[in-house]
Formats: sequence, C-alpha cells, structure tokens
Amino acid sequence: MNLDAIQTKLDEFKRYVRKMKQYKEAVGLLYWDLRTGAPKKGVQTRSEVVGELSTEVFRMSVSDKMGEFLAFFTQPEHFGQLDRTSQKMIEECQKDYDRSKKIPEDKYQAYVVLTSQAESVWEDAKHQSDFAMFQPYLEKIVAANQEFIELWGYEGNKYNTLLDMYEPGMTVEKLDQVFGALREKAVPLLQAIQASSRQPDRSFIDQTFDKEKQKQFSLFILKQMNYDFEAGRLDETVHPFATGLNPGDVRITTRYLPNDVTSALFGTIHEGGHALYEQNISSDLIGTNLCSGTSMGIHESQSRFWENMVGRSWAFWSRYYGDLQKMFAGQLDQVDVDAFYKAINHIQPSLIRIEADELTYNLHIMIRYEIEKGLINGTIRVADLPGVWNAKYKEVLGVEPAADSDGVLQDVHWSGGSFGYFPSYALGNMYAAQMTHTLKKRLPNFDELIASGNLLPIKEFLTEQIYRYGKLLTPNEIIVQMTGEELNPDYLVAYLEDKYKAVYGLN
Amino acid sequence: MNLDAIQTKLDEFKRYVRKMKQYKEAVGLLYWDLRTGAPKKGVQTRSEVVGELSTEVFRMSVSDKMGEFLAFFTQPEHFGQLDRTSQKMIEECQKDYDRSKKIPEDKYQAYVVLTSQAESVWEDAKHQSDFAMFQPYLEKIVAANQEFIELWGYEGNKYNTLLDMYEPGMTVEKLDQVFGALREKAVPLLQAIQASSRQPDRSFIDQTFDKEKQKQFSLFILKQMNYDFEAGRLDETVHPFATGLNPGDVRITTRYLPNDVTSALFGTIHEGGHALYEQNISSDLIGTNLCSGTSMGIHESQSRFWENMVGRSWAFWSRYYGDLQKMFAGQLDQVDVDAFYKAINHIQPSLIRIEADELTYNLHIMIRYEIEKGLINGTIRVADLPGVWNAKYKEVLGVEPAADSDGVLQDVHWSGGSFGYFPSYALGNMYAAQMTHTLKKRLPNFDELIASGNLLPIKEFLTEQIYRYGKLLTPNEIIVQMTGEELNPDYLVAYLEDKYKAVYGLN
Repeated sequence: MNLDAIQTKLDEFKRYVRKMKQYKEAVGLLYWDLRTGAPKKGVQTRSEVVGELSTEVFRMSVSDKMGEFLAFFTQPEHFGQLDRTSQKMIEECQKDYDRSKKIPEDKYQAYVVLTSQAESVWEDAKHQSDFAMFQPYLEKIVAANQEFIELWGYEGNKYNTLLDMYEPGMTVEKLDQVFGALREKAVPLLQAIQASSRQPDRSFIDQTFDKEKQKQFSLFILKQMNYDFEAGRLDETVHPFATGLNPGDVRITTRYLPNDVTSALFGTIHEGGHALYEQNISSDLIGTNLCSGTSMGIHESQSRFWENMVGRSWAFWSRYYGDLQKMFAGQLDQVDVDAFYKAINHIQPSLIRIEADELTYNLHIMIRYEIEKGLINGTIRVADLPGVWNAKYKEVLGVEPAADSDGVLQDVHWSGGSFGYFPSYALGNMYAAQMTHTLKKRLPNFDELIASGNLLPIKEFLTEQIYRYGKLLTPNEIIVQMTGEELNPDYLVAYLEDKYKAVYGLN
Repeated sequence: MNLDAIQTKLDEFKRYVRKMKQYKEAVGLLYWDLRTGAPKKGVQTRSEVVGELSTEVFRMSVSDKMGEFLAFFTQPEHFGQLDRTSQKMIEECQKDYDRSKKIPEDKYQAYVVLTSQAESVWEDAKHQSDFAMFQPYLEKIVAANQEFIELWGYEGNKYNTLLDMYEPGMTVEKLDQVFGALREKAVPLLQAIQASSRQPDRSFIDQTFDKEKQKQFSLFILKQMNYDFEAGRLDETVHPFATGLNPGDVRITTRYLPNDVTSALFGTIHEGGHALYEQNISSDLIGTNLCSGTSMGIHESQSRFWENMVGRSWAFWSRYYGDLQKMFAGQLDQVDVDAFYKAINHIQPSLIRIEADELTYNLHIMIRYEIEKGLINGTIRVADLPGVWNAKYKEVLGVEPAADSDGVLQDVHWSGGSFGYFPSYALGNMYAAQMTHTLKKRLPNFDELIASGNLLPIKEFLTEQIYRYGKLLTPNEIIVQMTGEELNPDYLVAYLEDKYKAVYGLN
C-alpha cells in the first residue's frame, strides 16, 4: 500500500476520532450545565440526552469501523509510517477497544445498571450510616470487577489492571514500595507533630466571611496563577470541579463557605491547577483523543502543586496575605502572616479524607489502597469492611469512626465501581513534591518568584514539561523527562519533613 | 400486517425521532451556552461540535431509514391504524424529508456556504452602510430561493412555499387581505396620533437605573407571570431570546440598559411569553417532534400578548407601578401611574423595526413583506432595494433613512436566507388581539385579574387552548378552536383604536 493510501485512511481515522471527541465535548458541557445551573424539572430529559450521546461515543469506540482502523494501522508496515501523534492515537483507541470488547455486552449492561443502583443505595446507606444496606451491592461490584479482570487479563497482581486505567503503567509492586517508604516516615512525623506544644491557633477562622468578597478573592488569585479567563470561567457548585471541554474552554467551580474563608480559597487554587493543565495542552492535539491530561495522578500533581507547594507556602502568603487582609477589612487585623501561615498548615488526624491536611491525606489514601487490593485479590471480604476500616484508621491515624457514615461509607468511589482511582491522589502528592524539587533547581529563584507574585515562569515551565503534551507522553515518561528519575517518594517525605518541622518547631 | 407488527415499527420510529430530538436538545444547550457565557477561546472548537451534531440531525432526517419509516407509515392501511399524535409525527417528518430531499446535496451545501458568508458580509456592509457590498450575495440568495421553490413546488404564489415554513398554511392571498385591512386603518390612526396635542412626556426615562434592581424587578415580574423557575432560568445577553430545550428547561435572557428601565422590562415579559408557551407543552409530547410551538406566528402571539396586551395595559400598571416605584426608590416619585402608562405606550414612526411601538411595528413588517414577495416573484430587483425601501418608508411611515444601515441593511434575516419569516411578527400581533378578545369573553373579569395580579387563570386558559398542544394542532386549528374564527385583522384594529384613542385623547 502506498503512502497516499495510508494518508487517506489516516485522515479518515482522524475525522472519526474528532467526531468522538466532539460528542464527548457536548457531553462535557451537558454535565457542566447539569451541575451548575440546569433547572431541576429538565434534569430527567437532559439525563437521557447525556445517555444517548455517551452511548454513541461508546458505540463508535467499539464499532466495526474502529475495528477496521485498528486492524489496519496496527500492522507494523503501516504503523511504522505514522508520526508519533498518530501512533499514540491508535494505541489509545486500541486500549479502549480491547477493554470494551472483552466484556460481553450483557455483562457490561448489567454492571452499568448495578453501579447506578449502587450509587443511589450508597447515598441512603451513608445517610443512615447503615453498611448492611450497601453490602450486597458492593459484593456484586467487587465480584464483577474480579470477573472483568479475568476477561481483560493482568500481569502480576490482579489489581494492576485497575490501576492502569487511571495511572497507565502503575503497578502494585511500585505502589507497595513508594507507599511503604512514605508511610515509614509519615507516621513518625505525624506523631512528633501531635506531641508538639506549638499547635497553631485557628480560632480566627470562626467568623463570617462575605461570599461576594470570597468570590472576588478567588478570581484575583486565579488571575495571579495566570488562569486564562478568556478560556474559562468560575462558577459555584456544592462539589468543586474542573472540566476541560477543549483547551479554549476549561471551566472551574468552587464552593463558598460563609464561616471558612480557606475552603473556597484552596478549593479554587486546587481546581485552578487542574485547569492550567488543560488550558495549556498544545492546540495541535485539539480534536484528537490525546487532548487531556495524561493520567489522574499527573493531573492531581498539578492541582496539589498549585494548592500546596504554591498556595500553602510561606512565600505565597508573604506576597498575598496583605491582599487578603484588605479584602476582609477588619476581620484579620489581629492575625499576622505567620499565624495565618501556621493555621492553614495545621496537621490533625481526622476521620474524613476530603478534609485532611497534606500530611495525613496520604495516610487516608494508603488505607483505601490496602483495602482495595485486598478486596480484588480476595484477601478481604466485603462483609468485614467496617471492622477492617476502623482497625486501620486506629492503627495508622489513631482515630476511629463512631459511625460508618464517617468511616467506610464516606466516599462515593466504590459505589460507582471506581477501584484503582484512590491511589492517584497520593501519587499526585508524590509527583508534585518531586516536580517541585526539579523546579527549585531549574528556577533557582522559585521562592522569590512566588514571593513577588510572578507566577508566570512557573506556569511556563510546567507547560513546557507537562501541560503541552496532553496524553502524548505517559505519566512515567513525563516524570522521568522532567525530573530525571522515576517516581520517588523521598521528595514528598523531605518536603513534608522540612515544612512541618519548621511549622511545629521540631528539631 | 398485524397490529403488533405496526406497533413494533412505530416504537422503533419513535425511538428514532426521540434520538433526533435529543441531539437537537444538545445543540440547543450548546447554542445557549455560546450566547450566554462560553469563553471566547473555545468558540471555534465549540462551533465545530455544533456543526457535527446538527449535521447528524439533518442526516437522520433524510436517511434511508427515515425514508423506510415514511414509506411504511404513509400507506393508508398503516396510517389509519395510528393515533393522531403518531400521524402528526409522521406528517412532520415527511414535510422535512421532502423539503430536504428535493434539493440536490451540492446545491444545499453551496447555499449553506453562501449564507454563512453573506451573514458575515452583511455585518460589515451594515457597519459601513454599504449596500453594494452586500448586493451580490443577496442576489445569489434570492436566486437560490427561487430555484429551491421550483424544486419544492408551490401552490398559487411562489412566496407561499416560504411562508409555509414559518406559518404552516399561510398564503399570500390571506396575507394580502389581512395586511391590507390592517394598513387601511393603521395609517390613518397613526396620522391622527401624530396630529394629537397630547404627546406623552418621556423625559423621566432619561435616568440611570441600577442594573441589579432591574434584574430583581425582571425576576419579580416573571414570577408574577407564573414563569416556572424550576423549569427555567434568566440570564443576560446582548440580544434577548428564549429557548425551549424541553418543557422542563425553558431559558430566557434579557438585556439591561442602564438608561432605560423599560427595555429589560418589556424584553423580559416578551421572552417570558415565549417561555410560558414552551414550559406548558404537554409532557406527553416530550421526545417527539411535536414538542415545540406550532408556528412562528403563534409563538409571537404569546410573546406579544404578554408584552403588550398584559404588560402595556392600564390594569397591569395599576397593580405593579407601586412596586416599580419602590424598587427604584426616589427615581419615579414625580411620575404618576397615568404618566408612566402613557409613556410606555408612546407611538412614534421610526426607522428601526426592533425599536418600534405596537402600532407602527406592523407597518415595518408590511414593508418587508411587500419587498420579499416582489423579490421572490421577480417584480423587485435586488439592485433597486435601497430605493424601494426608502420610498416605502416615506410613503407608509413618513420617515426616510439617511443611511442604508438604518434602512435596508438593518435586519439580519435576508443574509441568512430567512425569507417568509418577517410576516410572523405581525401575524403574532393579530393573533394576540384576536385571542385577547376571546379571553375577555371567557374570563369576563380579565382586567380585574390583571389589576389584582392574579395572572394564573390567564396562563391556565392559554395552556388549555394553545400551549399544551405543541405542534399537534396547526396555527389555523389553534385560532379557530380558541376564537371560533380564522385569523381576522379587525381585532387588532379595534384593539389599537380603542387603546390609542384613549391614550392620545382622540374622539
């Protein structure tokens, strides 16, 4: 086959992928609208629209047409003719195709129904703190995942197949190693912090902060981060999120709590970090299946980097605390920047993951990881979960939930079958610390840039190293190319120890 | 063929139509988003998404599958087995199918390109007031419409085929009659009004009205109209519009002018009228191609009815003027309700259609109707348009544009090829007056209901007579069923004479 014929076929394939991407963008906007302001009486009909378009995307991903494209382009003599972007597009389609094709349609349909029922049952079960209600659903979901893994196949640990969906290339072997190393240092650090007599005073947080001013300050900080408002917008939702519809339209939402000025602030910076990633993907990738972040872990590294390594840094508040005091005139006069810095870097073991600080957050994740690994490999039974959960919290964090609603029922993930997702959060923290180490070497005036409010060089460096690639590079390729080595938990350990020994006056 | 087989096929047809409707709903939301707040850097990619989904709807409407459905169900022995709703669904699909199939694809594609270029050229031409720039495009658009009419076929006047697209069943013969009768009375009435010494004082309008308060008042009035905020929302755009995504999600927009409190007010009521129609279509029709207003004229009758017959009535302001004064405390103290009522019912011939009052508006439309009829039938040449336009304005309204930007170039419609659309606006006024006549008979306390702010019985009556049917009844069936006779311009004449003789103190 000559090159012209390959090119013609490639153009056809790209148009096909572009159409799928366009449908996904429509679905993305429909979701955004449902979550930000769609009138409730239209939700039922709208959900059916979402269902129809999503189904169409799925159909396209497993169609005979897609099968033909893949059969053609994966032949070495054709694959070899493709540029790297096209090769990567094929590889991504092949991965989706295999994953979907290996599950018989009736099993998949039954699973969709099961998880959608389970999400609704979980909501009630959490509300009533009644694990028994949720248990039969979770048992079926775990069993289905075990069955799917057999169909998909796996290398090494069965759980690897699930991990790979969120963090391509990640394995239990690697996670055991990095989480082990992290835990070994994190737990003693936590104990030392708890024993410290220098506990921050957080009483000032207990005031009413005007919502409109919180919004103004959120907008101000996003502007400082070089979030592009011509390629995005900020709205309000109960659960903050970021959604990249295309690099020219990356929207974020936040939540304003009247009695806690830090919630919207760090929530906005966090989502802003996700958004910077999506806004700065190369425009060459628009309309391809590579035009999004490369993995959940790398995505989370960017939200965490901006939230913690920048947003909770001393340098940041040495620059912006005056602006915050001015915005909430009279409310923070008695709190100096040092007190504020310590208050927002308060470490406290707690029951609830989403409220956890940047040290204990990782421990919440490790508990979930151990449990998921056990469930999938059959070494932990669903029926035993509440006991297992509580014991692990007691052991690792020294706290024990009085009710399952604050324990094993707190997260939505399992009800939707999202096993393998949780590790991304802790991976994000580790990647972020490792990247920060590199940033400080490559931009030696890193702290001064932040302290002078000049965040642009940081964004530009991250764009060059990470953002522009979209899914063109794997998570491992990204971290190696940027930092010169594979994921290494020591950077997060060093970062946490440095920072918190200073905050808590440890030696 | 037995009934079961017909039912099975009917179910399949309905699923097919539902899918088309779902795609249209997605497109509707994408448009709404583009016009209300989509970030500008995402617009290019988003427009391609809209294009892809719209094309898919078009493809489905002319597909072989659709052809098979229609061939099957239009056979008398099958058609006769269907309920009325299904029959009407078939008829609507057949109409679209025929319209699209009769135009060769290359001609249609060329026309789409032509009109999209023409819209952009028109914008520049209007800006520079340069008709010559726009002329070659308009000539091609007129020629294409003439060619399409030959392909579509026509009965009586060629222009009938275009009218039928916006107002099914409407003809030149009927329009000539009703517009003639209206003009015969409207022109002398206008002359008498202009000769009156009792011209309203509008000087109070020239103040700054706080935008937030304008918004609050718009929301208040919509609530009074029984617009359902659980099935809609109000946003701000440069050009106000209403969009019915489904009966549970009917959104409206308005525009707040700082120096004119009446613009947002009547704009909101107008769009609110359109929205009441769409919100109250029977839920049985959701997912069918009958789930929208039956015609442009009937739709406009509802926006006009609420804007003018209710919103510009004495009874309305006897109830709500106090609220308006309270909202803009101190700004309207010197203006009593009588002065306000007269000011908002000021009649003044002008050059610009969209700024026209409820009397002269009809004359603006008649001029466009005469011109369109002439263009399509070849009795007016595009090259002569500026002269023809100016002469007609001089003759009918007594004003003459100094520049084509305020004359023949003022409207976007022709650049998009929307010939046959303009008459809907005046038809709306006529329908509205005729319906108001019936309403006053059927709800004898009509004025008192308004004066007491009890607008619910009015909305309920309109729902029962018009809204719930969607496209299940034709415009003519609606007006005959509700008022007992076909469209009759005398009601609008009587309404205008009654109202404005009182406002201007004519005998």
